Amino acid sequence: MQLANIQWSSVEEEIARTVFERAYQREITALMQQVRERANAIASLEELWMLHDFLSVRRHEIDGKYEFDQASLIFVFAELLKEGWLQFDELAGLAPEKQTKIAALTRM
Amino acid sequence: MQLANIQWSSVEEEIARTVFERAYQREITALMQQVRERANAIASLEELWMLHDFLSVRRHEIDGKYEFDQASLIFVFAELLKEGWLQFDELAGLAPEKQTKIAALTRM
Repeated sequence: MQLANIQWSSVEEEIARTVFERAYQREITALMQQVRERANAIASLEELWMLHDFLSVRRHEIDGKYEFDQASLIFVFAELLKEGWLQFDELAGLAPEKQTKIAALTRM
Repeated sequence: MQLANIQWSSVEEEIARTVFERAYQREITALMQQVRERANAIASLEELWMLHDFLSVRRHEIDGKYEFDQASLIFVFAELLKEGWLQFDELAGLAPEKQTKIAALTRM
């Protein structure tokens, strides 16, 4: 599958940014809720450090995932679909070729 | 002030361990409460990462502070007094010389 040098029209880029931002808001809202729940359930220092480790991992993942970069957008959208932060129909408006590639990547 | 090679009798060591453990329980209980409160007040990802940074610092501090080591105990008790995790009268039973040294360090 050819994924390098995929061109994005300005309309597609706008759609991508909107969808990307939406997924980001969903994921961080869920993360903040999860951290609140975990923090409220902490009963030992060990559990507190487990929360710290969890935040270290999530911070690293989120910092890496949500850099808007056309070259990796196809992969990121596939990842966001697999993780449930996006639904496939939210990619409407992207060229069918891009949608096909994203869909294929979600099955890998 | 001569602080190296201070000898601890077995009775003093037992008192020190008890007091040390008590301060530790107080500090981590307060920390867990603080983390719960901070987590419940989080309204943005930036604040979530601030909580992560806070935990990184506190973990480092606590891991370092609560290693029970006779050679550094005088310093650690002075620190715990300054931070409010111990009261001076809880050191009753330690040799007066040790109490004097600890008290002197709290004023530094």
